[in-house]
Amino acid sequence: MQTDTATKTTAEQRRAFYERMAPHHLAPLWEVLRGLITPEPRSDCRAALWRYDEVRPFLLESAEIISAREAERRVLVLENPGLPGQSRITTSLYAGLQLIMPGEVAPAHRHAQSALRFIVEGSGGFTAVDGEKTYMSPGDFVITPSWTWHDHGHEGEGPMIWLDGLDIPLVRALDCSFAEGYGEAAHPLTRPAGDSLARFGSGLLPVDYEPVSRTSPVFNYPYSRTREALEVMRRSKEWDPCHGLKVQYVNPASGDYAMPTIGAFMQLLPRGFGSEPYRSTDATVYSVVEGSGRTMIGEEILAWGPRDILVVPSWTRHWHQADTDAVLFSFSDRPVQKKLGLWREDRGNH
Amino acid sequence: MQTDTATKTTAEQRRAFYERMAPHHLAPLWEVLRGLITPEPRSDCRAALWRYDEVRPFLLESAEIISAREAERRVLVLENPGLPGQSRITTSLYAGLQLIMPGEVAPAHRHAQSALRFIVEGSGGFTAVDGEKTYMSPGDFVITPSWTWHDHGHEGEGPMIWLDGLDIPLVRALDCSFAEGYGEAAHPLTRPAGDSLARFGSGLLPVDYEPVSRTSPVFNYPYSRTREALEVMRRSKEWDPCHGLKVQYVNPASGDYAMPTIGAFMQLLPRGFGSEPYRSTDATVYSVVEGSGRTMIGEEILAWGPRDILVVPSWTRHWHQADTDAVLFSFSDRPVQKKLGLWREDRGNH
Amino acid sequence: MQTDTATKTTAEQRRAFYERMAPHHLAPLWEVLRGLITPEPRSDCRAALWRYDEVRPFLLESAEIISAREAERRVLVLENPGLPGQSRITTSLYAGLQLIMPGEVAPAHRHAQSALRFIVEGSGGFTAVDGEKTYMSPGDFVITPSWTWHDHGHEGEGPMIWLDGLDIPLVRALDCSFAEGYGEAAHPLTRPAGDSLARFGSGLLPVDYEPVSRTSPVFNYPYSRTREALEVMRRSKEWDPCHGLKVQYVNPASGDYAMPTIGAFMQLLPRGFGSEPYRSTDATVYSVVEGSGRTMIGEEILAWGPRDILVVPSWTRHWHQADTDAVLFSFSDRPVQKKLGLWREDRGNH
Amino acid sequence: MQTDTATKTTAEQRRAFYERMAPHHLAPLWEVLRGLITPEPRSDCRAALWRYDEVRPFLLESAEIISAREAERRVLVLENPGLPGQSRITTSLYAGLQLIMPGEVAPAHRHAQSALRFIVEGSGGFTAVDGEKTYMSPGDFVITPSWTWHDHGHEGEGPMIWLDGLDIPLVRALDCSFAEGYGEAAHPLTRPAGDSLARFGSGLLPVDYEPVSRTSPVFNYPYSRTREALEVMRRSKEWDPCHGLKVQYVNPASGDYAMPTIGAFMQLLPRGFGSEPYRSTDATVYSVVEGSGRTMIGEEILAWGPRDILVVPSWTRHWHQADTDAVLFSFSDRPVQKKLGLWREDRGNH
Repeated sequence: MQTDTATKTTAEQRRAFYERMAPHHLAPLWEVLRGLITPEPRSDCRAALWRYDEVRPFLLESAEIISAREAERRVLVLENPGLPGQSRITTSLYAGLQLIMPGEVAPAHRHAQSALRFIVEGSGGFTAVDGEKTYMSPGDFVITPSWTWHDHGHEGEGPMIWLDGLDIPLVRALDCSFAEGYGEAAHPLTRPAGDSLARFGSGLLPVDYEPVSRTSPVFNYPYSRTREALEVMRRSKEWDPCHGLKVQYVNPASGDYAMPTIGAFMQLLPRGFGSEPYRSTDATVYSVVEGSGRTMIGEEILAWGPRDILVVPSWTRHWHQADTDAVLFSFSDRPVQKKLGLWREDRGNH
Repeated sequence: MQTDTATKTTAEQRRAFYERMAPHHLAPLWEVLRGLITPEPRSDCRAALWRYDEVRPFLLESAEIISAREAERRVLVLENPGLPGQSRITTSLYAGLQLIMPGEVAPAHRHAQSALRFIVEGSGGFTAVDGEKTYMSPGDFVITPSWTWHDHGHEGEGPMIWLDGLDIPLVRALDCSFAEGYGEAAHPLTRPAGDSLARFGSGLLPVDYEPVSRTSPVFNYPYSRTREALEVMRRSKEWDPCHGLKVQYVNPASGDYAMPTIGAFMQLLPRGFGSEPYRSTDATVYSVVEGSGRTMIGEEILAWGPRDILVVPSWTRHWHQADTDAVLFSFSDRPVQKKLGLWREDRGNH
Repeated sequence: MQTDTATKTTAEQRRAFYERMAPHHLAPLWEVLRGLITPEPRSDCRAALWRYDEVRPFLLESAEIISAREAERRVLVLENPGLPGQSRITTSLYAGLQLIMPGEVAPAHRHAQSALRFIVEGSGGFTAVDGEKTYMSPGDFVITPSWTWHDHGHEGEGPMIWLDGLDIPLVRALDCSFAEGYGEAAHPLTRPAGDSLARFGSGLLPVDYEPVSRTSPVFNYPYSRTREALEVMRRSKEWDPCHGLKVQYVNPASGDYAMPTIGAFMQLLPRGFGSEPYRSTDATVYSVVEGSGRTMIGEEILAWGPRDILVVPSWTRHWHQADTDAVLFSFSDRPVQKKLGLWREDRGNH
Repeated sequence: MQTDTATKTTAEQRRAFYERMAPHHLAPLWEVLRGLITPEPRSDCRAALWRYDEVRPFLLESAEIISAREAERRVLVLENPGLPGQSRITTSLYAGLQLIMPGEVAPAHRHAQSALRFIVEGSGGFTAVDGEKTYMSPGDFVITPSWTWHDHGHEGEGPMIWLDGLDIPLVRALDCSFAEGYGEAAHPLTRPAGDSLARFGSGLLPVDYEPVSRTSPVFNYPYSRTREALEVMRRSKEWDPCHGLKVQYVNPASGDYAMPTIGAFMQLLPRGFGSEPYRSTDATVYSVVEGSGRTMIGEEILAWGPRDILVVPSWTRHWHQADTDAVLFSFSDRPVQKKLGLWREDRGNH
């Protein structure tokens, strides 16, 4: 019987066969199948924490090393310890801390990659997107949509620092990167500051509005507003056992995530809250806005305070403890996984 | 030839034929076709204006005639002059002015019909929807979604008056009315006031939120916020020739209209603005919030001031002149027409 | 107390008050509220049956009375017995039986109203829609979308008869009728017959296709294909207790109903099947394709055979018995009610 | 001035700085930015052709080496020459040729990865998906949706060969692989063969159907039907200058692509047709069904005949010449790129 014959081949016979076909760009699936299609998510991405007081001195030192203009973007990439040299914080996402000093300019460019900025320190800095400027304060969530001109500047005092999150590895996996420089430091301004927030972020849309993109037309979600909303919501005392009080930023023109490739979230853990274990398939980057506590990720305990950044890998059970009222910003590729029917979550310890 | 024969039948022969088949519930289309499928919209709906200073005394007098509790809802229906006795302001929509006096209660009920309230006068009144109370101020846009328990009350001083807009005639055309009383004056409160606006109206949604209805989960769009947004938007000096600066209320969970059957709009006409003619197939009810001016509707000139209400019939060319900065609220069945692929508009005089 | 005072007013006082305000186009809601917002659907629409052998002679006689060209459309309207003189079979829909004789032409026109044709008798007749002709056979479901040019002709022998279903009353309720004649009998043909079915109805769409309307680009759903599909499906022996085996026609470019305003359905009841009671808010018109049986509608029993037409009013409990294998076509305004969040159904007798 | 100072740092100073921060998992973006965000797609993926007569002998030989059961899936992976050892045919997709011999079984398993099968040779083989069997013939397009049990078998004569296309690299980039074996060779059958095609692929859907997944409920799109549709469509003589006559497989329940992560297309090039240059960001795998010709990809000329497989990298200008009527199946990650707002195309030579 054929099956019997087949299984009697020796390892050498097989190897010889593989070598003969390799020049034809053919390879035996059965030798790699288990590694390609794993029973559960299994990447090299690891849990990690960046303490802000450790990272900040390097960031400030970088201002001595290179100007924002020369660097184009003066950013220290947060490299996942399990993915060194790959400019990735998870398998699909990039993160870095960007610094801009008073008077500096990060010149105008655009790219297919979508970017979020989560402001960590400073005031007086601004991002201009497609002709509208927005000034940034800590806790603000700012978007530069795919293929929109954007530049950054700083009209205030002291360092201006934010967390950048981009979908660079995902765009690379899809092989569809595009980029171009504007040629000048700043793209011309065509709208007054605050216009997009008023126009799209007030429960209203322009009459008979048709969206031109999948990204939110609101490009700054100010922390003052987000924080106030959380305070109102906490009055109803509905705490999710895994998340405390957790919300996601949305595109008011669609009700979908604010960005098509990156989901962004804000979460309030009240003082003394200890969450139940949780895991989901979207590896997640956290930025601590307020408070302190710790997150248990598998066997690891990561203690955090304000401005620290941590990453939780895909499908890794984790839970939080808050010593004080804590506010955590986070982002992941959840919108992609949901759109593709791939996202899973798992609550508790079962 | 058959065709010739046919056309030679006399009017009497035809009438006799029609009479013979009538008992069989059959009727000749060709005798009514032109009236059923008209070249352009052609209903009995007419342009009309209700001056607030004329209507208000009747409304206050109604408080002497009947209590809110006895009336269930103490409302004077705004009947379109072309559709008397039909409780319709347009062919598809109902409008009325509702009065509630201090200490009164309009008892809890629910119905398939969706309702909007546009607040005209007073303070201290509230609407409670599905267990959450919202206090209402002039210019606020408040929704009671289909089949949600709601009641109204008044904890302040003086009369509380608002414009009700409902889809009663449309629901009748579809023959799908449902209603029930709650049995007690008020449905129990289960959420703090302001919860829904914070939770759904701040650029955020609860994590992994799935809408349970097509109506906005925000049920009060405060005028303070709408008005401020209009002021910010006007800085960009983009005036639509027909509409000035016009926005629509949206459901932040979908980007669609705030209500599935009624579209609601707010519009700023700057002092001295004269619009170009415009018409669309959605007959529209206007409520003047601020300012004065006039609207030319076909051959008619309707001069308006604060709190006046006017109606523009379907497909009737009209244009506005504003003597002062003017703010107009309006509503129509536009979402229905758009969803069904029936809506048309026409700009200018061609 | 105010409430007491109010309720002491006499009926005469109230009537006098109503008369004073009537000229101002104001009316008291409380006198009509119960009739406007009813606890359950409550229209004058009634159950009815049109026996084909009773109706057919009138239809044939109409060919002696008027030509298709003179009539524009030679149709006997099926008037709901509860809605006489209103050209309505339900509150929102129109139905009629159309006859075209060999060599006749129903000239090209278009209108905002959407139409379905369900073919009852004859062969060799055709409908042309936007430049493509389709020949029609009994059981075929043919669509003329809103605002598309269409004409009918007959190249075969004998009478060609079909059931027309249109959304005329709904379009009237929305006051957005438009119509125009083409000026010539037939609109020019620009595509070979069968093109749209091949292009859109084969599990394929043109590459990067973007729909231009909400109506299905397939405009003939042939009975041969529908019937064969039902036979394959019946092998899995899954019978819905209320519906037997029931499917709906879909727009392959959206998965939605084939028409935005009218849902169309086909249903197989196997010999001896007796359904459980069912009701829904969409009053429904049935056309019997094959078989015989009866439908109990409230207190009435309507016995039917091939080509008979019956109507079930909104929210009226009904159930079917099939003496033979029976195939029923049906249509209603369900897509409208679903889009607006108004549709309800109720299974069984609870 | 700070900027001047900064730019005067030497390469050594910078390198020293980089080395100090590396242990903190920090890296300078400015040293890698150009490689991360490229002006145009720039991967190692290369154009390549697999001639079926070269590949087939290896495939048949593999049956001597290993049984289908031992291999789980006996597949020769088509490795992109620019991405050796990575089991990828493009940066985001996997492809392989699978062989199953008479009487063999590829045992039941399921995985988060979606798979398509495009049948190349043989008859009598079947795929069973979630309890329904479908027999496969050359040109059929068969889907196994994410996380559905599936197994393959062969009840006919001679080798059964098909092209597998999976989203393995994409799922890896998102780190959300799941898989499990069923434990037995075959999952039990619960529906008659042909049920899903009849139920979902005939212009109909079950009444009030709500999709449970984003993948088409039709899982075999038979070539007989696709081919016939192409023949009907060609009568209208509309040839796209770049594509000839090109269609995509769709999910009839949504109008979207048949699979959420992979777009599949079929295309007819008439004899003598020479296309204009075209490029898009979705690297594409072609499988020749009928005919012969050649495709120019950048500087390369790849001549093809029936059953050959070729790959065109992202954003690479290419054009086709058909010596005979030619039919080409193709697939790519276009649905992903479109959902994420990343897809671009470019026609002609500008």
